[in-house]
Amino acid sequence: MVKVGIIGVGRIGKVHCQSITRYVKNAKVKAIADPYINDDTIKWAQDLGIFEIYTDYNKILDDSDIDAVLICSSTDTHSQICLEAIKKGKHIFCEKPIDHDVAKILEVKSALRNSNVKFQVGFNRRFDSNFKAVRQAVKEGKIGQLNILKICSRDPGAPPIDYIKVSGGIFLDMTIHDFDMVRFISGDEVDEVFAYGGVLTDKKIGEAGDIDTAIISMKLKGGSLAVIDNSRRATYGYDQRAEAFGSLGQVAISNNMQSTAIISDADGVHQEKPLLFFLERYMQAYVEEITEFVDCIVNDKEVSVGVDCGLQPVLIGLAAKKSLSQNRPVKIAEIESEFGI
Amino acid sequence: MVKVGIIGVGRIGKVHCQSITRYVKNAKVKAIADPYINDDTIKWAQDLGIFEIYTDYNKILDDSDIDAVLICSSTDTHSQICLEAIKKGKHIFCEKPIDHDVAKILEVKSALRNSNVKFQVGFNRRFDSNFKAVRQAVKEGKIGQLNILKICSRDPGAPPIDYIKVSGGIFLDMTIHDFDMVRFISGDEVDEVFAYGGVLTDKKIGEAGDIDTAIISMKLKGGSLAVIDNSRRATYGYDQRAEAFGSLGQVAISNNMQSTAIISDADGVHQEKPLLFFLERYMQAYVEEITEFVDCIVNDKEVSVGVDCGLQPVLIGLAAKKSLSQNRPVKIAEIESEFGI
Amino acid sequence: MVKVGIIGVGRIGKVHCQSITRYVKNAKVKAIADPYINDDTIKWAQDLGIFEIYTDYNKILDDSDIDAVLICSSTDTHSQICLEAIKKGKHIFCEKPIDHDVAKILEVKSALRNSNVKFQVGFNRRFDSNFKAVRQAVKEGKIGQLNILKICSRDPGAPPIDYIKVSGGIFLDMTIHDFDMVRFISGDEVDEVFAYGGVLTDKKIGEAGDIDTAIISMKLKGGSLAVIDNSRRATYGYDQRAEAFGSLGQVAISNNMQSTAIISDADGVHQEKPLLFFLERYMQAYVEEITEFVDCIVNDKEVSVGVDCGLQPVLIGLAAKKSLSQNRPVKIAEIESEFGI
Amino acid sequence: MVKVGIIGVGRIGKVHCQSITRYVKNAKVKAIADPYINDDTIKWAQDLGIFEIYTDYNKILDDSDIDAVLICSSTDTHSQICLEAIKKGKHIFCEKPIDHDVAKILEVKSALRNSNVKFQVGFNRRFDSNFKAVRQAVKEGKIGQLNILKICSRDPGAPPIDYIKVSGGIFLDMTIHDFDMVRFISGDEVDEVFAYGGVLTDKKIGEAGDIDTAIISMKLKGGSLAVIDNSRRATYGYDQRAEAFGSLGQVAISNNMQSTAIISDADGVHQEKPLLFFLERYMQAYVEEITEFVDCIVNDKEVSVGVDCGLQPVLIGLAAKKSLSQNRPVKIAEIESEFGI
Repeated sequence: MVKVGIIGVGRIGKVHCQSITRYVKNAKVKAIADPYINDDTIKWAQDLGIFEIYTDYNKILDDSDIDAVLICSSTDTHSQICLEAIKKGKHIFCEKPIDHDVAKILEVKSALRNSNVKFQVGFNRRFDSNFKAVRQAVKEGKIGQLNILKICSRDPGAPPIDYIKVSGGIFLDMTIHDFDMVRFISGDEVDEVFAYGGVLTDKKIGEAGDIDTAIISMKLKGGSLAVIDNSRRATYGYDQRAEAFGSLGQVAISNNMQSTAIISDADGVHQEKPLLFFLERYMQAYVEEITEFVDCIVNDKEVSVGVDCGLQPVLIGLAAKKSLSQNRPVKIAEIESEFGI
Repeated sequence: MVKVGIIGVGRIGKVHCQSITRYVKNAKVKAIADPYINDDTIKWAQDLGIFEIYTDYNKILDDSDIDAVLICSSTDTHSQICLEAIKKGKHIFCEKPIDHDVAKILEVKSALRNSNVKFQVGFNRRFDSNFKAVRQAVKEGKIGQLNILKICSRDPGAPPIDYIKVSGGIFLDMTIHDFDMVRFISGDEVDEVFAYGGVLTDKKIGEAGDIDTAIISMKLKGGSLAVIDNSRRATYGYDQRAEAFGSLGQVAISNNMQSTAIISDADGVHQEKPLLFFLERYMQAYVEEITEFVDCIVNDKEVSVGVDCGLQPVLIGLAAKKSLSQNRPVKIAEIESEFGI
Repeated sequence: MVKVGIIGVGRIGKVHCQSITRYVKNAKVKAIADPYINDDTIKWAQDLGIFEIYTDYNKILDDSDIDAVLICSSTDTHSQICLEAIKKGKHIFCEKPIDHDVAKILEVKSALRNSNVKFQVGFNRRFDSNFKAVRQAVKEGKIGQLNILKICSRDPGAPPIDYIKVSGGIFLDMTIHDFDMVRFISGDEVDEVFAYGGVLTDKKIGEAGDIDTAIISMKLKGGSLAVIDNSRRATYGYDQRAEAFGSLGQVAISNNMQSTAIISDADGVHQEKPLLFFLERYMQAYVEEITEFVDCIVNDKEVSVGVDCGLQPVLIGLAAKKSLSQNRPVKIAEIESEFGI
Repeated sequence: MVKVGIIGVGRIGKVHCQSITRYVKNAKVKAIADPYINDDTIKWAQDLGIFEIYTDYNKILDDSDIDAVLICSSTDTHSQICLEAIKKGKHIFCEKPIDHDVAKILEVKSALRNSNVKFQVGFNRRFDSNFKAVRQAVKEGKIGQLNILKICSRDPGAPPIDYIKVSGGIFLDMTIHDFDMVRFISGDEVDEVFAYGGVLTDKKIGEAGDIDTAIISMKLKGGSLAVIDNSRRATYGYDQRAEAFGSLGQVAISNNMQSTAIISDADGVHQEKPLLFFLERYMQAYVEEITEFVDCIVNDKEVSVGVDCGLQPVLIGLAAKKSLSQNRPVKIAEIESEFGI
């Protein structure tokens, strides 16, 4: 039985907490910590049978009975808590991104090198049945050699402007998942990136120094091409699609719906909108990622989404950012050399 | 070059006239005849290069230069003109049904037996790419042994009440196409039929002695089961679907659309309605059926949709009518014995 | 907190047990009982935190601390246990059918009349998001007045012949769910039924006195028509579709898939098969039905799927059985009068 | 009646010839000319009722009875014949591209300025029901302000290497249609383009100095973003899709199929491949474009796809070519200034 402490019980922390309590074999939540914990959350936790509830996460790190921590706090605290948890020998599941600052990710990477800590990054889409099916088709050679990979990723609405200001920008906050999908589906690394972007949905996003719409094209090291398109606001809901096209054919995934119901009437043929957002869309994937994390601990397996999977999308994101601001293609190697990688 | 005379140039006569002029190799329309011909139709014909335009169809039958006639006049004249055309040795393409009166169809059948006349009935759906694909899958064994055949056939709106009164009833007027599809797709004959019906869209249809909604279930001689559902009014347009389910799988066809465009917005996901009605839906099938007819004449081939294909659906329709009125299953053999078949 | 005892922990009993443990608020499983319980099941129960494990279900009925029972034992024991549980004042969730014998269902109904026991029948499909969407569209008037209701229900494979022999026949064992869907979606009652059936997938099913393929047409009391088609063996998996067609349009549902992945290659365009069978397809519906049951107990609400919902489909099933054997339409009233209803 | 001469009766010249003969009101083909004409083509023309058949196209230009010419000869002859035809006062339908050399297109444009000649470029996709539906949705504001436009355009196979060598490269030969679609759907002009390309399907294409796979991203003058992905070889056939995403929603089109048939079996759910290539896919669009051309002549209307529609995609194609070779974004203005536009 893996005893887990959850650091940060906002939206995603709660999701993981419920997943473990309900579904994940061989694991239980022993404690939770959140500096902003309120009465509702306390009651919610107690209903789940969790009674060690702290504001200070050190209570969790100091508890020698706890085997693993889930770091679900705000992004700017991730790398610091990671380093402390590594010191305490806790296995770590860290929400993405590890940090916006590559140097700090490298610090975590370095600290991990000398430890026995299992470290997994929260790239949930890798555990979604649609994206897994694309990866599997590519891996099994069903589409032959990959030629073109396309990812469409649009949110139903932008986060608050205050969040956008500290988010690191769309490429590190939102596209980072898509960069991870490029790596996951292709099984390849990005060589170079070129980004076009614009402020097309909300001027305030532009005033906050960010963009809300982007097309990012990429060359992969193996020669394949890839392209991502992003928007912060799709009126019809969360749009999460992918297509991998290769020498033998194509695999494509479309959005998940609430039901399969189709209504035909005098106005046309109608369906509901896709599932609203990530909590609805990826609920099952959140369970699967924690299940794998616990399985890696219990059976001493290698984590499939480790620290390098956390690092690479940040590098690509920074390359995209630079590409956008300088209006030129940028190699990932250029970003790496900036950080002495 | 097959020289054709068209008897009756209403809606469907015009369709065939254009098909021949534009698409059908080795055929040309030499003359048309219609007792109700008007100036618009005369101009329309002349634009197509047809200048022999009559009110009396005997002018066509008496023209020894004409090889074949298309009988597109009102149903009550079909069998009589067929008999006259057979006497004159003209090949015949006759719109469905040959007659509502089985005795008269048998007369035509008998007259054909002693002639060299090619005789084809206008069951256009057999030439539609969707229905052909279902037939082909069944014939090629892709679904194995047929277990259940389902046909959904709904019109966008009912014909005028005056037409309904002389139509022979829904089973002979509308379902007759679906009975033909049961025979075509299954390659089998109907053994027994049971019909439920109701007047659910328009009371006037009931007052005219007909129904507008029906579910007709059938046992085929080979043991398979079949079911047709009909409505005279589908708000979303012409609904023409079929499913054949067998020991190895299922083949299903859906409706054809004007375009593949799908609009996703804040209200949901929307598509246009299916193609409105038979002229839009089966335009290509109308060309194909005449092409086959001409090909049978030119190359002396056997017609695939002959007089028996015209007879059987009428027998099934009469069985359905009897089933509905007596609320019991009726064997086709029972109808046949009424007519000494 | 509703304390639940589960009587019968075969496949479906286990499903409910997990649902309650994981998802259902205000409920916990206090005890389970099964005469055939084995070590695996005992270990499985203990892992879920259930330690009162019996072979004799009376242990559960006699436990005054238990508020409600789930009857998931073999069908022939349902009505007897129901009667005993009513006597003990336990709320009851009973798997379908309550009994094959109408007299025994009436006994349960009668016993319930003089009790305060909440009684729910396990018609899970009423809680499925697809079927709920159809019901909702009908209820909200989106398709206008119901004209035609079609249900396609096919299993991926037949149960063992030994089970078929005691199953009460396909209409009481399998179609019973579809009869319930006709009532649920239409909000109407069946007036008359006509059934065609055949043994088309496995001769042994015929030797066991049953059929494996059926088309059942129905007239509803409000005048609408309905039709169900059944097969015991669809090679492509569990086929669970419905279409409700009315004066304003149609609502249709199709099967659920494992993923949305579509592969296009030189051979064509391919998708996975639908979800295999009821455990995969209706997992969420099983949770929802127990959630409603518990909610009715906690908040003293009326159960939406009560004893009459258990009775009616059995009456329709018996009418279908009689229709098949006598090859004539049978009114539900005829069956009712046999049982003095 | 518009009398037409067709210059070049290869594949596409034949298509137009048949379209006019069969469908286009108020037009007839008076003569055809082709230096490589053979006996088969002569017979084919005579069957269509065309008896003026030349090897020298001047016979057509010199015939004062001919009102309009269709220029369907090899690309390198287009602009020269255009200039001669303008001098003779013939209306012109010219296949795309007018020329690979911008200077020559400008010459044609200049010659047209001082003439009364109607001039249309053969961008057939503008007349396809799918692409028209996308344009219409955008134009009618159904998706609001355009944010992202995506075009997927893949051929089932590459043309012969000898053709590729003189084709002007993929951007001028194949993507030119997609650049036209960007302009048509958006109603906007391209400002800047960035292209990634590779040789991923056939090394010989690379040896011929071309690429076979590309992702081209664009900024439009109005601020929208666009992206095209191309491949010379899609195993599953001609892939012609588009998506326009805007502030109110999205409109998307998918490929057209031979039939709607779907086969479900033990291996999965299967459909045929999309229509093979442009002749099958755009047959109706070819009719529509000539119909509009003739209508513009007869009713003295302005052509909707004029010389500028022929020029712009060439400029974008040259920008894409430069972008690929110099690995940097290139403004259309940069290309224009090279040609003094």
